[in-house]
Amino acid sequence: MADSAAKHETDELYQKAKRAKSDNENGGGEVGKEIECGNILSEFKTTKVLSDSAREKNIFIHGKLADQDAVIILEKTPIREDTLAELFAGSTLKLEMKNDIYSTYRLQALPQLNEIKTTVVCPATEKHIKKYQRQESFLVEETGADYQSITLPYIQKQSFSVQWVYNILEKKAEADRIVFEDPDPTVGFLLLPDFKWDQKQVDDLYLIAITLQRGIRSLRDLTQEHLPLLQNIFQKGKEAILQRYQLPASKLRVYLHYQPSYYHLHVHFTKLGYEAPGCGVERAHLLADVIQNLQSDPEYYKTRTLYFPLRVDDGLLSKYKEGGRL
Amino acid sequence: MADSAAKHETDELYQKAKRAKSDNENGGGEVGKEIECGNILSEFKTTKVLSDSAREKNIFIHGKLADQDAVIILEKTPIREDTLAELFAGSTLKLEMKNDIYSTYRLQALPQLNEIKTTVVCPATEKHIKKYQRQESFLVEETGADYQSITLPYIQKQSFSVQWVYNILEKKAEADRIVFEDPDPTVGFLLLPDFKWDQKQVDDLYLIAITLQRGIRSLRDLTQEHLPLLQNIFQKGKEAILQRYQLPASKLRVYLHYQPSYYHLHVHFTKLGYEAPGCGVERAHLLADVIQNLQSDPEYYKTRTLYFPLRVDDGLLSKYKEGGRL
Repeated sequence: MADSAAKHETDELYQKAKRAKSDNENGGGEVGKEIECGNILSEFKTTKVLSDSAREKNIFIHGKLADQDAVIILEKTPIREDTLAELFAGSTLKLEMKNDIYSTYRLQALPQLNEIKTTVVCPATEKHIKKYQRQESFLVEETGADYQSITLPYIQKQSFSVQWVYNILEKKAEADRIVFEDPDPTVGFLLLPDFKWDQKQVDDLYLIAITLQRGIRSLRDLTQEHLPLLQNIFQKGKEAILQRYQLPASKLRVYLHYQPSYYHLHVHFTKLGYEAPGCGVERAHLLADVIQNLQSDPEYYKTRTLYFPLRVDDGLLSKYKEGGRL
Repeated sequence: MADSAAKHETDELYQKAKRAKSDNENGGGEVGKEIECGNILSEFKTTKVLSDSAREKNIFIHGKLADQDAVIILEKTPIREDTLAELFAGSTLKLEMKNDIYSTYRLQALPQLNEIKTTVVCPATEKHIKKYQRQESFLVEETGADYQSITLPYIQKQSFSVQWVYNILEKKAEADRIVFEDPDPTVGFLLLPDFKWDQKQVDDLYLIAITLQRGIRSLRDLTQEHLPLLQNIFQKGKEAILQRYQLPASKLRVYLHYQPSYYHLHVHFTKLGYEAPGCGVERAHLLADVIQNLQSDPEYYKTRTLYFPLRVDDGLLSKYKEGGRL
């Protein structure tokens, strides 16, 4: 999440910069001229890698450039169709493996066909450095007993505030964002766009159903008595999305998080095909599965061992370490 | 004639590669020696770009290699911390924009520091071409009965070839890639890097455990009798990864796919934090959960309703539509 936000802001900087370039052009400066600048980075001294993504092929580095703090962002560039002919013709291939019809190689291309996008923030402030710092996660195993002895006391002690949720339920906030409402006090809920979704397209559709009923903290509190609630959210949520966005149930991924981001029961509705943050199997639980589990075993979420990731700076992770559970 | 010559040259290169590998295995050659193979891709003719991802910096191309259908996958490689010093020292920077504390560049690096992972599937079948063609997906609900009446007949009729899996089990291919081996015929398995992982960094670690036992197609075939196998894979797989890559279990995401890509039981080991394709909750099932489920109910995967995405061109999706199940 932090990485996406940081990247988004970086992209915004590009926009800002392009506008400035355009101003230059209008102001009599040199049009579109690139300046080869030797290599200012040969003086760069790495202090720490703040984060990196193997999937996105980027890296965020904090270091020193001529005695000043700097953040450098490197990102590989997308592969463009219009470069393929040159790439195939002019590169060197090194065979790594062949098995039946499959073979893999390392391709070495001409540098100008395979550039690395580089951003330098210098001088960089503490705020820049923190923004790009990613936190590692660890997978935690929580038995039913661990929940009672470690997690629950921790949640209760933290007294995480869900006042903002109650504000929504009481229509004191975000009332104009409500897409659907079932006011029944037991099985009712509100359906709203998640604030990560700008609603400009359905490609990344993301809505949240928040239960009117209070006091259900998470998956762990669910029993068979909650089945009517869960089935109601599932059914009416899907119908509302079909009606409003013309998206059928077969295009939806409907799930709960464990651990949730906040301890008031809520269900995520995201578009299948959109890899929403948190739709990974280590944190998401399909609502259809949760319903099935409770139908077959009322005590399922009390007795079950559950797995979830925790960030290294999460207080709960410390509790699991102290308890020798990691 | 030119094409025959090209094919002949291609075959020669493959034979050369295989002999060198065989030399390796017999101890007669250098371990892990690569063969530079000129550039077989200079003969490649692009037919169509099947899909590409600007986020992941990859591209999937259908074309012809010496008159045969081929699919080529190009993907930029992650940026590794241990290459930074060389990258910064030895590259050329071209300034694009400077605005206050922000500046952007195009960095041109030495080819060997900035390789492109290349996979060639040749000859490629219609199935391969379809597989890499980006398609919309739909979520399918498969009851235990649906599996028997729709999915299983379809799988059996298709007779998907797993010859390449048997090549690995019989050490006819990829023998030098085996990270760990338990030769027990019932609970044994081979652990190898998935070919999507270039093994140059652990950030995107991706290994597959392939069961020695044949005939277990998927999750649906699993019963309590498979518990020793599953537990063995889980235990020994984690230990092998800790030993080889110094990655503890708390940094791993271990799961099966349903539907799987191929119908010979295999388990995915990916690094937590790496959003491996297919780690979404709609397709992945944590091995720890599968074990827990079978411990509590031997018939779990026979009776359970399972959910999974299918692409719009998947023959199985048509079967579900015909059966009115979509």
